[in-house]
Amino acid sequence: MDIDDLATRILAGERRALARAITLVESGRADHRSEAIALFEKLKGHGREALRIGLSGTPGVGKSTFIESFGMMLTGQGLKVAVLAVDPSSARSGGSILGDKTRMERLSRDPNAFIRPSPSQSHLGGVARRTREAIDLCEAAGFDVVLIETVGVGQSETVVAEMSDLFLLLLAPAGGDELQGVKRGIMEMADIILVNKADGDLKTTATRTCADYAGALRLLRKRPQDPQGFPKAMTVSALEENGLQTAWDEMQSLTDWRRETSHFASRRAAQARFWFEAELKQALLARLEREPMKGLVRSLGHCVEEGIKTPSQAADEVLAQLEGRNMPVA
Amino acid sequence: MDIDDLATRILAGERRALARAITLVESGRADHRSEAIALFEKLKGHGREALRIGLSGTPGVGKSTFIESFGMMLTGQGLKVAVLAVDPSSARSGGSILGDKTRMERLSRDPNAFIRPSPSQSHLGGVARRTREAIDLCEAAGFDVVLIETVGVGQSETVVAEMSDLFLLLLAPAGGDELQGVKRGIMEMADIILVNKADGDLKTTATRTCADYAGALRLLRKRPQDPQGFPKAMTVSALEENGLQTAWDEMQSLTDWRRETSHFASRRAAQARFWFEAELKQALLARLEREPMKGLVRSLGHCVEEGIKTPSQAADEVLAQLEGRNMPVA
Repeated sequence: MDIDDLATRILAGERRALARAITLVESGRADHRSEAIALFEKLKGHGREALRIGLSGTPGVGKSTFIESFGMMLTGQGLKVAVLAVDPSSARSGGSILGDKTRMERLSRDPNAFIRPSPSQSHLGGVARRTREAIDLCEAAGFDVVLIETVGVGQSETVVAEMSDLFLLLLAPAGGDELQGVKRGIMEMADIILVNKADGDLKTTATRTCADYAGALRLLRKRPQDPQGFPKAMTVSALEENGLQTAWDEMQSLTDWRRETSHFASRRAAQARFWFEAELKQALLARLEREPMKGLVRSLGHCVEEGIKTPSQAADEVLAQLEGRNMPVA
Repeated sequence: MDIDDLATRILAGERRALARAITLVESGRADHRSEAIALFEKLKGHGREALRIGLSGTPGVGKSTFIESFGMMLTGQGLKVAVLAVDPSSARSGGSILGDKTRMERLSRDPNAFIRPSPSQSHLGGVARRTREAIDLCEAAGFDVVLIETVGVGQSETVVAEMSDLFLLLLAPAGGDELQGVKRGIMEMADIILVNKADGDLKTTATRTCADYAGALRLLRKRPQDPQGFPKAMTVSALEENGLQTAWDEMQSLTDWRRETSHFASRRAAQARFWFEAELKQALLARLEREPMKGLVRSLGHCVEEGIKTPSQAADEVLAQLEGRNMPVA
């Protein structure tokens, strides 16, 4: 692969080059990894920065409709919009929440939009790196907004929040005054809660639900990265395309404030450090899954099970093996 | 330290030698660690096996009173009883749940009992290894029963359950029919739930609470390591020393069944493997906290924060450093 040419074409905003580069970073092959590293070396210092918006919402809240309406509004204003997905379930199901582009038919045909299905990966760690790198590639390709979509499953919201500048929680109108069992931890990550389906029969319910969430948000501890009035809850109707501009205005005013107070930059720095450490730990532990360590761990595991060695003795033996070949014992 | 002599005296059941050996395994010093490893080498193959009983209960349920009454009953039957503790809070408070032996005044004076406060350690991983090694030492010293006490905080129950043959949950009588907010995960670990304080005014409440827990236990998925009727809930009064013999009979019958069906041995084997892998991972990650890696991680962390390197590039660099000195890249 001609990495120089690929880099040039990405910087020129060519969608096919971008798609090809994302496929490259998604690959597990060692030679592809080397090419990906070389590509990022070429792209370094392009100086472009997209607004990274994380979006979580369980199936049924109208996430695709929201992304389509919101995305079309942004492209209509001349902005370039990329949509990526983190879907921890895709590895199991073989499917993907964005695999079916017909879900966002208009947006997927829009020349200023780029939609990429979530990669099928066996673990969230792998998905996380590939998504972060796909975000970087979208920035290099000159996209203004990168939407990172996830479903409300397990740890995926935390992963997406750790790679976003803004985190949106899309919720449906709820019956009664219960808060739909939204976990406190998820609520604490949200910058803006959007209660969707504020249209037709559900409009009143949506308004009441929004007030409930607004009340719940006020009970949360104040975060230093929030100006007065944030986090906030708002109603939208993705179907009728209502409230989308107001929501976007709020996102921009929040972002402007964070840029001015340098919270924007410091959050990105903290996120980069977080991913550096997470990746390092994961890679270190992965050595135990590769030969020759894998075989040693397996055979010592049997010794431990049979009581021939204590767990500590066996652990020390693996470490001695690693350190003996490697580095002086500290 | 004369390790040969120490081993001989532990095998002779000398309490002072046992206490000294536990202090040795609790030490963080490298020379102490070498001596501890040498000690376990000497003790290997003593062939003694205690019944390891994990016991969890939040403050106020009468845990000390239970341990004292239950322990005195066992020593009265000629059994030797050791009491250890896993207390994740002791590192923070500087105190310890068993630090004050006056809590168990009679038991602590009993020549057939040995009570050891929980070590003050900064993390549960360290506490876990030291507690497991203390259990091994108690077994070598000929104790018949080792009680491992913990408070219901965070991960400590899981840690204790992973080093016990039996896991007891001590609970107080509850008002109403709510189950005191006992987490499902904790409930699933229990072999026997003991509702304490079945005496005086609380007797009726205790009986009803016990029935509630029995109902809740029946709803759990059947585990292969349980005979008919287990896990079960029972009432006891540690204060009036009622129900303790019945509880002990149930523990013995459960243990007998597990021994006959080889679940006892296979559980110990699985636990040993669990701790081997846990310790190995922890030790591997600890290398990042030591020089020269610590300094490299720190400086690369700054590069990542400033955007000079991507998280993946920086992680690869640390790994290359580790592997370059160490082992051929797999």
